Amino acid sequence: MITARVTVTLKNGVLDPQGKAIEGALGALGFEGIGQVRQGKVFDLKVDTDDRAKAETDVKAMCDKLLANTVIENYTISLD
Amino acid sequence: MITARVTVTLKNGVLDPQGKAIEGALGALGFEGIGQVRQGKVFDLKVDTDDRAKAETDVKAMCDKLLANTVIENYTISLD
Repeated sequence: MITARVTVTLKNGVLDPQGKAIEGALGALGFEGIGQVRQGKVFDLKVDTDDRAKAETDVKAMCDKLLANTVIENYTISLD
Repeated sequence: MITARVTVTLKNGVLDPQGKAIEGALGALGFEGIGQVRQGKVFDLKVDTDDRAKAETDVKAMCDKLLANTVIENYTISLD
């Protein structure tokens, strides 16, 4: 059993209204010196195999097909 | 300027219907051997300081006040 963590973030240049809202909220709460906030997603998957190479290939395919919209998002995979 | 990455994940035992839905969708797409999927959030913040200790304290406060619901969520902070 391998645990994979997929982190999906917006590509540079893609507008992030959610991040902007958080930036505003942090300012309103009195936090100063926040330059920029970008929000992304993280997925923790348990893959039922002991073959790390296979797990990585599988998770990559899952990202391309379902987990990430590769037009506007980047993803990184880290295996545990 | 320090870049901080905050990863917010659900605590163990907290139901994750979104993760369950992704699990089902991956199965429907033909991916086998997926044990469990849990979804979380990631925030990339640019903090306008060069003091790493201060940045970490600030980001921790932001997590407790806004970014994470500490009743049901855990968070980790990594500074770049």
